[in-house]
Amino acid sequence: MKLNSLDELLVEQLQDLYHAENQLVKALPKMAQAASNATLRNAFEEHLEQTKGHVNRLEKVFESLGQSPESRTCEGIKGIVEEADEFLSESAEPSVRDAGMIACAQRVEHYEIAGYGSVRTWAEQLGHQQAAQLLEATLDEEKAADKKLTQIAISISNPQAAVGAR
Amino acid sequence: MKLNSLDELLVEQLQDLYHAENQLVKALPKMAQAASNATLRNAFEEHLEQTKGHVNRLEKVFESLGQSPESRTCEGIKGIVEEADEFLSESAEPSVRDAGMIACAQRVEHYEIAGYGSVRTWAEQLGHQQAAQLLEATLDEEKAADKKLTQIAISISNPQAAVGAR
Repeated sequence: MKLNSLDELLVEQLQDLYHAENQLVKALPKMAQAASNATLRNAFEEHLEQTKGHVNRLEKVFESLGQSPESRTCEGIKGIVEEADEFLSESAEPSVRDAGMIACAQRVEHYEIAGYGSVRTWAEQLGHQQAAQLLEATLDEEKAADKKLTQIAISISNPQAAVGAR
Repeated sequence: MKLNSLDELLVEQLQDLYHAENQLVKALPKMAQAASNATLRNAFEEHLEQTKGHVNRLEKVFESLGQSPESRTCEGIKGIVEEADEFLSESAEPSVRDAGMIACAQRVEHYEIAGYGSVRTWAEQLGHQQAAQLLEATLDEEKAADKKLTQIAISISNPQAAVGAR
């Protein structure tokens, strides 16, 4: 099959993101369970609910483009989740494990920020307004989740800095 | 082996980034060769030179921490590079291939932005000033490379918008 147009590339990359979000729905409960810091555990649990919303939103995007939702193996997220699984299998002090899990989660967020950034821009350029708005909403949530993780990282390893940053 | 401290986690993640940068030194020439747009090809070639600099900079970071540079398989970048290879093996119109390659490259940049963001913050918190400065310099270059790719993406698919954005 040849990719003849930006529209076809858009659909292909939406299928990649659909697979990514569904993989994260499975991975996030494990991360929440492994977190020793309560704020971090809550953040993972909240982000799980948000991620389920991202799956639904992608289904609406497919619908708005007259497509049925399909998954296409997303090797990028597969690798990042594999890396997180490997990290969780290592023995680590609880605070060090929390710091490492935040680093893993921020790799996930940034993968999604890049991915949603591309499809949002293409949807806009192709005049798919509804799709562009839905993708922008998820992009904003991924950026906010990344910022929240940075704050938690600082507060975990340096409580004074977190107080100062408020 | 147990991860007992943030210092040990820092070294582990530097090894992950060292592997990532070395994988990119191999992947970028293929991407430059596959690019049909001259600006994009130049950007990949320039970023290859920059990436070689990032490898050297990481070696200086290891040295400043009294460590010898070692690689640790970075599954995240491995997955993202695999995704890019898969994309390049697909048949595509030249402009669609360029758009897709930019999306792949931005996933790489964002993986690195997340990775360098974490190690820079830990190096600062641990008082490793020289390491923190070196890592910050690379982080800034990765962010700039990401922005440049966004500009090229817009100019490729919508030349009018690029003129307006100048």
